Amino acid sequence: MAGPSMHDLDAVRRALAEVMMAGARRAAAQGAEMAELWDLAAEGIGGGKLERPRILLEMVRALTGASGSCGSDETQVARIAAALEVLHYAFLLHDDVIDEDLIRRGRNNLIGELLERARSRDGASGPAVGTRGDALHWARSAAILMGDLMLTTAHLLIARADIEAPRRAALLDLLEEATLTTVSGEHLDVSFADGISVPDVAMVCDMACRKTAAYTFELPLRMAAVLTGRTDVDGPLHRAGRHLGLAYQLQDDLLSAFGDPADHGKDSLSDLREGKQTVLVAIARSRPAWAAIREDLGRADLTPPEADALRGLLAECGARAEVERLIATEIHEARAALEDEDRVPRAAVATMDDLIGRLDRRVA
Amino acid sequence: MAGPSMHDLDAVRRALAEVMMAGARRAAAQGAEMAELWDLAAEGIGGGKLERPRILLEMVRALTGASGSCGSDETQVARIAAALEVLHYAFLLHDDVIDEDLIRRGRNNLIGELLERARSRDGASGPAVGTRGDALHWARSAAILMGDLMLTTAHLLIARADIEAPRRAALLDLLEEATLTTVSGEHLDVSFADGISVPDVAMVCDMACRKTAAYTFELPLRMAAVLTGRTDVDGPLHRAGRHLGLAYQLQDDLLSAFGDPADHGKDSLSDLREGKQTVLVAIARSRPAWAAIREDLGRADLTPPEADALRGLLAECGARAEVERLIATEIHEARAALEDEDRVPRAAVATMDDLIGRLDRRVA
Repeated sequence: MAGPSMHDLDAVRRALAEVMMAGARRAAAQGAEMAELWDLAAEGIGGGKLERPRILLEMVRALTGASGSCGSDETQVARIAAALEVLHYAFLLHDDVIDEDLIRRGRNNLIGELLERARSRDGASGPAVGTRGDALHWARSAAILMGDLMLTTAHLLIARADIEAPRRAALLDLLEEATLTTVSGEHLDVSFADGISVPDVAMVCDMACRKTAAYTFELPLRMAAVLTGRTDVDGPLHRAGRHLGLAYQLQDDLLSAFGDPADHGKDSLSDLREGKQTVLVAIARSRPAWAAIREDLGRADLTPPEADALRGLLAECGARAEVERLIATEIHEARAALEDEDRVPRAAVATMDDLIGRLDRRVA
Repeated sequence: MAGPSMHDLDAVRRALAEVMMAGARRAAAQGAEMAELWDLAAEGIGGGKLERPRILLEMVRALTGASGSCGSDETQVARIAAALEVLHYAFLLHDDVIDEDLIRRGRNNLIGELLERARSRDGASGPAVGTRGDALHWARSAAILMGDLMLTTAHLLIARADIEAPRRAALLDLLEEATLTTVSGEHLDVSFADGISVPDVAMVCDMACRKTAAYTFELPLRMAAVLTGRTDVDGPLHRAGRHLGLAYQLQDDLLSAFGDPADHGKDSLSDLREGKQTVLVAIARSRPAWAAIREDLGRADLTPPEADALRGLLAECGARAEVERLIATEIHEARAALEDEDRVPRAAVATMDDLIGRLDRRVA
């Protein structure tokens, strides 16, 4: 079993708690408003599933081999893994501002929580507070600002890592590339959603790779190669991460459109009402059923029965099956990227199998 | 003369151009959309006045003394100075999103420029592009994302500085503190503007120190102390920067309310129409004239004659004179913070005098 022990993930949780507590002390010195904002972020980040740190730790362990030592101090590895969770939360904060979301996984996100607090304060202290009524603007601005702090916190965690200087420099390079790639993916995503450009299937796949695969899969896998001194396997890990990330995003799109909200926590109507430009939609665009699909897709007032009809069309036109084929191909490619290379240890291939298994269970 | 030579500022310009060009190559590899966005940012950043890098260089020179060598490589100092300009631009980008501004210094900001391009593309390629009409949302999202990249670029510039490790660590600490302080100031500013809390004079002064003084004055002055190995003068420089920064912000508020737009490039109506919570306004709140002032302050449809009447009230009630007294006090305190300390070199006091002189010329 290539997965990290509970002990490893606990070390990440400790590192994360330590960083957020040190930040909370500094934030408190700035006054009650900043302390409140930081505490909300710490709570949000503490509720994460540590998917990215876990991938990093799993691959570090797989590449370390029988010796059991990766050549980088374990506390430092935990801190670097924690940086991935902080980075993820920073992206979520700005994503929620851009998508104008107030809810994530069925609960208030930071914006929703601030909004609720502002409104209850408003009621309690009378009309003098909040008369300009822009609590939503205030809450969104706070999420932009807090995202900035989380983004810099992630970068500083890597910049301060107490590891060999060349390894630290390599990690900073990877972080820089992943941040740029994620930003470019998000920028494309918004361009599609706002109708600045109309994407074909390849463009949406490219966007998804940039927006999701780069920091969620490629970055932790490649960082593991740096931390274990196994930069010779960077290429295969990079390719595998890209394929796996795309499979993950495609699956996410299917779950959002067809999945049971009780299983995955997504709003079953939001993607359809928003008219989100997914690969599913891009495929449907080339089918005869598109004329009927486009009538309802993106209608903010879509009713549940209309959404069901729309799902029916997306399935009948073959778009759903096509996305399922794409997922299978990408999963196959992810595995092949590692298996085809003699230099990749068998344990790393086994780790990839575990990751793929988790993806499969997600669909089921 | 303690000011840096043209040669020094040229080195900063070269460092800035180098960083932005390296970034442009990486952005271009992400596709045309990302390349366009990066190029716009590079243009925006290239038009800056290098105020913050200049303060850093001036103080480095003042603290270096007769030896002429600060103990840190000059190319590295130029890159660190360039990071301050990148940081400033990052804050401007997110500030413009939060303030919903399209114009800065009489020209399109990044959002305004993207919006114009989206609209002209819309016209050129027909109704298929941009039918969802959310070009403004797209442009603002792009500014959030580009601000993220600029913020990380600034941090990476310091993290990669090829200087002694303890100095680099100290610079990262200062950068972290300044970023947090600026964010907390901006958060307060938005809280005041959105009516989440109603500030008194002390609260607005505190907000201004956080939002402006911390990264514009304190950070470059304190970084100079680190770069020259003169951390013994960090305390006085920190205090001087805070006083000078507050004087600068108070002056900015007066210029916005009473100044000639032809001289300083600000819209003479925007602060009044927005009802911006400045120190001027906080002072006026405690005067009998407030009942009349609050009638018109923050009215989006304020006419120029009404604005003149409002300015008259703000002057007659003594608020303008009070702000002018505050500025004089802060300038005095800034100088005193350095002069009272024997360990501060005379050249550093002379540099502070130069800075104060630039502030005075700005008012005239």
